[in-house]
Amino acid sequence: MARVYNFSAGPAMLPEPVLAQARDEMLDWQGSGMCVAEMSHRGKEFMSIAAQAEADLRELLQIPANYKVLFLQGGASSQFAMIPMNLLREGGSADYINTGSWSKKAIAEARRYGTVNVVASTEADKFTRAPAQDELKLTAGAAYVHYTPNETIEGVEFPYVPETNGVPLVADMSSTLLSRPIDVSRFGLIYAGAQKNIGPAGLTIVIVREDLIGQTLPGTPTMFDYKIHADNESMYNTPPTYAWYQAGLVFKWLKDMGGLEAMAAVNARKAKKLYDTIDASSFYQNPVDPPARSWMNVPFTLANAELDDTFIKEAKAQGLTTLKGHRSVGGMRASIYNAMPEAGVDALVAFMQDFERRQG
Amino acid sequence: MARVYNFSAGPAMLPEPVLAQARDEMLDWQGSGMCVAEMSHRGKEFMSIAAQAEADLRELLQIPANYKVLFLQGGASSQFAMIPMNLLREGGSADYINTGSWSKKAIAEARRYGTVNVVASTEADKFTRAPAQDELKLTAGAAYVHYTPNETIEGVEFPYVPETNGVPLVADMSSTLLSRPIDVSRFGLIYAGAQKNIGPAGLTIVIVREDLIGQTLPGTPTMFDYKIHADNESMYNTPPTYAWYQAGLVFKWLKDMGGLEAMAAVNARKAKKLYDTIDASSFYQNPVDPPARSWMNVPFTLANAELDDTFIKEAKAQGLTTLKGHRSVGGMRASIYNAMPEAGVDALVAFMQDFERRQG
Repeated sequence: MARVYNFSAGPAMLPEPVLAQARDEMLDWQGSGMCVAEMSHRGKEFMSIAAQAEADLRELLQIPANYKVLFLQGGASSQFAMIPMNLLREGGSADYINTGSWSKKAIAEARRYGTVNVVASTEADKFTRAPAQDELKLTAGAAYVHYTPNETIEGVEFPYVPETNGVPLVADMSSTLLSRPIDVSRFGLIYAGAQKNIGPAGLTIVIVREDLIGQTLPGTPTMFDYKIHADNESMYNTPPTYAWYQAGLVFKWLKDMGGLEAMAAVNARKAKKLYDTIDASSFYQNPVDPPARSWMNVPFTLANAELDDTFIKEAKAQGLTTLKGHRSVGGMRASIYNAMPEAGVDALVAFMQDFERRQG
Repeated sequence: MARVYNFSAGPAMLPEPVLAQARDEMLDWQGSGMCVAEMSHRGKEFMSIAAQAEADLRELLQIPANYKVLFLQGGASSQFAMIPMNLLREGGSADYINTGSWSKKAIAEARRYGTVNVVASTEADKFTRAPAQDELKLTAGAAYVHYTPNETIEGVEFPYVPETNGVPLVADMSSTLLSRPIDVSRFGLIYAGAQKNIGPAGLTIVIVREDLIGQTLPGTPTMFDYKIHADNESMYNTPPTYAWYQAGLVFKWLKDMGGLEAMAAVNARKAKKLYDTIDASSFYQNPVDPPARSWMNVPFTLANAELDDTFIKEAKAQGLTTLKGHRSVGGMRASIYNAMPEAGVDALVAFMQDFERRQG
């Protein structure tokens, strides 16, 4: 079969040139006679791959020198515990902003390690908007402020970076990192599971200001201590080498594409095409407040939910796959990360318009 | 360059047919139009890959139905904390057998969570043997007994499974699992990082008797709770899907090779060839008590350590790579896991004999 346009929320599409290079190097990476997955992580071949990937990520995001970049395992779900274990301090409290399913999971896990103050929540509005800066009732002396810039399930994205007046800002960027330029210096810690915009599942990126680490709560597993990983350049134990390599290929591809400014322009255009299609129709609907609509995850419902299965089936027949919405919100969801070509969005728009003409 | 014989202790060689299949399926897994790394872990394609991998592993190891098989992240180093957090119980104690570098790491981490009794240690003998059954001074009422059947660094392997009289036996099988048949029912928990005999780094296999899980210590991160992963079939969060797929290809290859009985015969022969070469020579030496010599990791020293670099350089020129010993023991180490062809061992033996003739 031809390659499909896969709208999965994650794991998600990878750039075709990345896959092609990984394929070509599978049995022999650059004359080494080995697949990257076969290399000792302490050998010079893999060390060069790892260092280049970090350098490229630092260049793409313009990460300041006082931030560590960690290549970890365990996904954002592990970070939900690692963050309080590393940043909360004994007896401390943290502020959390609740904007959707992933915020809620982060909050529930953090509550197991200390005091969590939910300083704003949009739950009463069914998570269809981002709270405004002046809604955030920040706590004096909080160890950090945690938020989810992009909620993958609800398709809500903050149109601004919260101002925390010097309190470290912690951001779950799993589904938005690398979609556009960001000012890393405004954050204390950024984390992201790889399986949306970075690479294969099984790799987790953490970018952390180095003065924040090294004071874990008692009982923190060694493998949950950022300082251990930072001091060992993410090689305290065997890292997920192949995923790290593929992430490096993605970073190289992003540079080839013109970097994050260029990606932001494409991503904004892709999202606008979909939201315009939805808004121009009385058949499709997206409930999110327009300024807070996600560039990456576009949930939408059909006027008649009985047509959902037909929509999904017909879309799939046209090579437009994994459009079913998350079970908690229903309907459809088109995730359009960096690796989704604009042509894929165009094809989805054409299909949606045709489907509405026939079924609407 | 042609494929090399890579004697890395891990990440290590993968079977060439596995790599070839992964290469061929990189842009399109079986007509899906997707790489496996691009698939939603909750979609039917990946669910079938995951289920097949587990079924094949269960068949290879004849895992009883009352054991859960978990596909996790974080490596054996994470297990060092997860095991006491899940099995120790508050105020409990555990017995640990100390036979080398990895035992020591497991012991150090477990001590952070409760009482650890080291019930036998071969440290006074520089970790060159396995303790006998009657050396194990097991503690009445211990929550479990932990040991390391194969010490990857020292090249020491237990020639027997310790009898624990009903106390759950926990085994770090990172560098021995799948090298031969085992009787899983003798163990409470078996764990292994994938990067030796299973697949790419970033995947960790845990096989655990289901009655042992579900009682974690307070403060255990959700992601460190075996029960959470067991109840969600290792999909509580996004698993390392591509590594899981490659592990599945390895399991299929093992079945094609005739299963673990057949692998054991080849592995015993490969190891014997190397140890025979060492023992027949006054130039090479292995310090390990013969009954406890590892089938998987063969450390050896040259009579003249000044020749180490020459040995490594000349070997590499012949396509025999990553032979340098671990920094803590020096000399050489040939790791000869399942994926190392017997021809690779033959080539190493021939090179060693030739080197000795010229330099010895």
